[in-house]
Formats: sequence, structure tokens, C-alpha cells
Amino acid sequence: MLLLNIDHVAVAVRDLDEAIDRHRRLYGVGPISRERVDSQGVEEAMIAVGGSHLQLLCPLADDTPVGRFITSRGEGLHHIAYAVADIAAALEHLADEGADLIDREPRIGGGGKKIAFVHPRAFGGTLMELVEIS
Amino acid sequence: MLLLNIDHVAVAVRDLDEAIDRHRRLYGVGPISRERVDSQGVEEAMIAVGGSHLQLLCPLADDTPVGRFITSRGEGLHHIAYAVADIAAALEHLADEGADLIDREPRIGGGGKKIAFVHPRAFGGTLMELVEIS
Repeated sequence: MLLLNIDHVAVAVRDLDEAIDRHRRLYGVGPISRERVDSQGVEEAMIAVGGSHLQLLCPLADDTPVGRFITSRGEGLHHIAYAVADIAAALEHLADEGADLIDREPRIGGGGKKIAFVHPRAFGGTLMELVEIS
Repeated sequence: MLLLNIDHVAVAVRDLDEAIDRHRRLYGVGPISRERVDSQGVEEAMIAVGGSHLQLLCPLADDTPVGRFITSRGEGLHHIAYAVADIAAALEHLADEGADLIDREPRIGGGGKKIAFVHPRAFGGTLMELVEIS
């Protein structure tokens, strides 16, 4: 498996507008996209930083994965996403190596991309996502 | 201020050798550098991923910032570091905007680079680092 890049680093926030404003004011950066992803229970904004992105993730309700994350841990770094060329092959390799996968098959995430999550147990508490870049 | 890139994403780990082995086995990536940084109380390994890096941070003792982080929150995502061209100017801008800085002046971090940390309070719980890239 080849990790092409860090596609994005995701931060869980309570107030998306406020987080976007803060990044604009402090770092002079703004979102290149903003999207509601009902299947994940979030509204997300992508901020381009060099060849990668910061993803601001705001839960649509408390009873969602990101909502529960904020309730238990507070706002902050949520996951790291790697770009891969072939996500099905990557998942097969990880399964063969015994990694604990949340998604054994790719599903569709923000921007219509194929994504899959690897359980934090596989990497000592760090939630990782794979994103197929075509 | 211009954010040039995500310089690295840092993950706090209890066992650096084990974390390196796991990344090599699961993702086929290995460190491009490994360094003990006594001033920060860590041994760190940098893994190149595309134009960015994953930084594995292992505390030298429990009574260090990363050691206390692991004690209170467990292993996992620790901070995100942005590359900037002029760290002194970036810190001045952040101070002018009222951001809560851990380092008001740059100090020397891993690889001999000028770095500074911005307090998690400035970004809703996310510890951020600036790294000057010359």
C-alpha cells in the first residue's frame, strides 16, 4: 500500500461558523468547500493548507459519532486521513495484517469520494481514514 | 500570515519502536529521522507521507507534557503543525489577534528548526505548532 499524502486532518468543533471565522482571522485561510454529509451526521468544511487540508467537522446532533466524541473528549483533533490510489486494495492489505477496520468496504464520504475508517485500536488510539484519490 | 503546508501531524505513543513497526507493517512507511529532543521531553520519529509528515512522539518520562497527555487522554493525536515562512511575524500576528500563545518567541525544536506552540484554547482544544521552513 502506498500512502500518497495526508489528505486531511480533521478537527471536531461545536460551531462551524465560529471555527471558520477563527481560522480566517488568525491564519488568513478560508474553506474551499462546505458540505452537509448526513450519512456521517456532520457538516464539514475543508480548508486547503499547502498540498493537504484541515477539515472542520461539526456534528449535526449530539447522538452522532462526532457529537459523542465532543461530549466525551471535547473539541479537538478527531482523525487523520491518508490519500491512497486503490482503497479496496488498501483495505484488503490492512485486513490481512489484522488491523481492526470500521469499514471493511469503502463507502461514499464528502465530495463523493470513496472512504473507509480504520479503528483507533489499530493505531494506538488514533482514528484513521483512507480516501481514494483518482 | 501564510500557512505554507501541514508540516506534520503528531501522535503521542507509549512505545516508539512498536509504533514504528506497526506503521511499517500496516502502511509500508518508515521514519526518515529519529531524534531525542530533551528540551521537549520526547523521542520523536518523522515519517514522510506525501508532502507532509506523521510525527510519532514518545515521552521520555511521565512527568513531561506528552507523558501527562498520555496519562490523562491516552495515546492518540496530539497536535498539528503548520509550516510558515516567518515564524516571528506569524507569532506577532497571532498575538495581535489575541490568540493565546504558549511560546511568544520561537524556540528550537527537532531538526534544529524554529518552532512555537499556540495554546489549545486559541483553537477550541487543538494544540497547534508553527514551524519555520527556510
